Amino acid sequence: MSSIAALRAEVCALHSELIRWGLVTWTSGNVSARVPGEDLLIIKPSGVSYDDLTPADMVICDLEGKLVEGEHAPSSDTEAHAYVYRHMPEVGGVVHTHSPYATAWAARGEPIPCSITAMGDEFGGDIPVGPFALIGSDAIGRGIVETLQGHRSPAVLMAQHGPFTIGKNARAAVKAAVMCEDVARTMHFARQLGPVQRLPAEAVDSLYDRYQNVYGQQPTSKKGAR
Amino acid sequence: MSSIAALRAEVCALHSELIRWGLVTWTSGNVSARVPGEDLLIIKPSGVSYDDLTPADMVICDLEGKLVEGEHAPSSDTEAHAYVYRHMPEVGGVVHTHSPYATAWAARGEPIPCSITAMGDEFGGDIPVGPFALIGSDAIGRGIVETLQGHRSPAVLMAQHGPFTIGKNARAAVKAAVMCEDVARTMHFARQLGPVQRLPAEAVDSLYDRYQNVYGQQPTSKKGAR
Amino acid sequence: MSSIAALRAEVCALHSELIRWGLVTWTSGNVSARVPGEDLLIIKPSGVSYDDLTPADMVICDLEGKLVEGEHAPSSDTEAHAYVYRHMPEVGGVVHTHSPYATAWAARGEPIPCSITAMGDEFGGDIPVGPFALIGSDAIGRGIVETLQGHRSPAVLMAQHGPFTIGKNARAAVKAAVMCEDVARTMHFARQLGPVQRLPAEAVDSLYDRYQNVYGQQPTSKKGAR
Amino acid sequence: MSSIAALRAEVCALHSELIRWGLVTWTSGNVSARVPGEDLLIIKPSGVSYDDLTPADMVICDLEGKLVEGEHAPSSDTEAHAYVYRHMPEVGGVVHTHSPYATAWAARGEPIPCSITAMGDEFGGDIPVGPFALIGSDAIGRGIVETLQGHRSPAVLMAQHGPFTIGKNARAAVKAAVMCEDVARTMHFARQLGPVQRLPAEAVDSLYDRYQNVYGQQPTSKKGAR
Repeated sequence: MSSIAALRAEVCALHSELIRWGLVTWTSGNVSARVPGEDLLIIKPSGVSYDDLTPADMVICDLEGKLVEGEHAPSSDTEAHAYVYRHMPEVGGVVHTHSPYATAWAARGEPIPCSITAMGDEFGGDIPVGPFALIGSDAIGRGIVETLQGHRSPAVLMAQHGPFTIGKNARAAVKAAVMCEDVARTMHFARQLGPVQRLPAEAVDSLYDRYQNVYGQQPTSKKGAR
Repeated sequence: MSSIAALRAEVCALHSELIRWGLVTWTSGNVSARVPGEDLLIIKPSGVSYDDLTPADMVICDLEGKLVEGEHAPSSDTEAHAYVYRHMPEVGGVVHTHSPYATAWAARGEPIPCSITAMGDEFGGDIPVGPFALIGSDAIGRGIVETLQGHRSPAVLMAQHGPFTIGKNARAAVKAAVMCEDVARTMHFARQLGPVQRLPAEAVDSLYDRYQNVYGQQPTSKKGAR
Repeated sequence: MSSIAALRAEVCALHSELIRWGLVTWTSGNVSARVPGEDLLIIKPSGVSYDDLTPADMVICDLEGKLVEGEHAPSSDTEAHAYVYRHMPEVGGVVHTHSPYATAWAARGEPIPCSITAMGDEFGGDIPVGPFALIGSDAIGRGIVETLQGHRSPAVLMAQHGPFTIGKNARAAVKAAVMCEDVARTMHFARQLGPVQRLPAEAVDSLYDRYQNVYGQQPTSKKGAR
Repeated sequence: MSSIAALRAEVCALHSELIRWGLVTWTSGNVSARVPGEDLLIIKPSGVSYDDLTPADMVICDLEGKLVEGEHAPSSDTEAHAYVYRHMPEVGGVVHTHSPYATAWAARGEPIPCSITAMGDEFGGDIPVGPFALIGSDAIGRGIVETLQGHRSPAVLMAQHGPFTIGKNARAAVKAAVMCEDVARTMHFARQLGPVQRLPAEAVDSLYDRYQNVYGQQPTSKKGAR
């Protein structure tokens, strides 16, 4: 169980990145991680303030979203996270926020056009919009999976709701959430004063390929492994 | 009097949430709490900097807004707070700010349309606009009460002035003020680049009902009680 | 000289309020104070980073802006501050920033319309625009004085340049700079999504009168004296 | 090698200014410095979090961008920095960010018009746009140099990418990046509510000349030397 203890600590700590980068207000965002090799996930408890969050507060659920271990009720978004883990085996982390600029694009139901190199790098194209879906069934999870499967983007803007992001682990999903808000903001500013062209498809392909394969440190490098 | 001491400390501490979430500038916002079981309220003194605020500085007034105990003059908005407590017995906390996005909607006299799930959750519909009213009489308090009675929203945008929020206690009223600014901002961004549809009424009902009854921790949970 | 030492410390410390409220970038703003009873002012040295500022760094100039005491060259805006002190004997503090929202109104040469109660309280009407004037002569100081004399507003937006504010002391001038940016921002947001009406003149008069005479603590109160 | 140790420490520390002034998100910006008197540059390693950066992590490259010393792969923007050092001998520091307002102008391919005195001071005219260029060749470096040679501005907005800035040393290039975002933001706000006139050319010349030659402390002053 010590790898679960480490994962609890990591998921807990990653919530502070949501605060630091301005993605969440009060208790409105959550991070989860898949427990490697088990049909379990670790997620934030519902409605608990980020200030009060400790690794011990993190709750463990099965991949149907049912509580397995923990003192608190899991995040009300747990069903959506669980659905993603059930249907996307390559996903090791999921993040949901109502970050303001990304949620503004979601409110209009408008994809963020891939017009700057940072979007080519991270998202490999537009950030797509998923269907409007109510909490309390499989609908949100299904909308996320149907939109992201076969798409390069690790972020989906659920219509009139907000962004969900995925990653190979929780940290990668948090990075996707942070960069999603960053480009949502820049593209919001860009569009406010005039039209913006999308990047040519070949440029996007080139940026995405390079960023995924060359950027950062190779695994032999200590810091680059993160 | 020890419950009053605790309430002084709580009301004092909650002002730091107004700063943290960017709701106030200089001395421009205030939090109050009803003293349970007594016709008294605890509120910030007028014009004192948030840095200097101590629990002992909080002043106690009766429900006409007259000073009962304290070294300082009460907030110049005390009459409005007192009017709310007199006429809405279910209210245990009141907050007033000039938070920038909510005040911008107030300046235009335009309700914030309920177009995102976060608004359905917290406000159960649009955030309504109250009348323009001058300080120095019952007019502001009356405008707040007339607008919020029979409305799900715990926030009202007083025209050309700013938001007032209510809650079962001071912390809940602060949360409503924080979420009011959050959705005012997101809806501002959304509307800047195109029209936004309101959510269907049934969806809003479903979100509001679930959030009020299912979200967070049940009272048996230690952290969820807050 | 101990009152000068205290004033050096106060002027130095007030620069941190410019940072805290987001009014300045790098070294782009300055605070000065009149030395009571002498034809002297204390001001920030030119181009020194806010992190490095100590009370000893503050420089003393005469009311022509000439250096009287200090190791550093005075702020390049000293002439404008000095002109204000020479021509407005009631002024004890001057602040200049390029705070972004106020400077945006200044860039268009557009007064900020008095459409919200916070503006009635603090500014007693619109925040006016002063002439475009180049640094290096009396022109900026003259433009400030001509615009603010006979005006309730302690803030002027110098065209295509930025705000200058005045006060009975340096702290009051800093408060005016902070509130000027606050209302510049709120009115910017308000106007982005539609037209905004000015408050009726009688309402502005009533707000301004009350705020100047009733708000805050009376001098017998320890904290309210600030 | 002790001057290289000092330069490593300085380049490392300057990255915290990018964070402080809101210019970077996650790992998306980098600072470099020329090693005086050698054909070497010091730059941030690729993809390492700002929290984790230590002076020892900084890497040393030749002016072709090839790693000479360091445990980590250099920033993926190293080729562009190196090209600038090769072709602009007067440049001692280069900074690249995706700061949001400057990148929004870059996304539209629109120069920032010189309409406020702060732009005259720092940039001596409009902030120009450079060509769209893909990473992985000389194209970015060439675009920066072709745009900035013979231009007063130390900042160029590379189209659909973001700003690059130069300076006589790394600190000056960081200052240019900070001021570029500052004026990009102010001019964005200004333009949102109406047209803005450029300053007359003579006024710009006068501002630029004075700021470059009179502003700040002369070299004999301890603090002004920075």
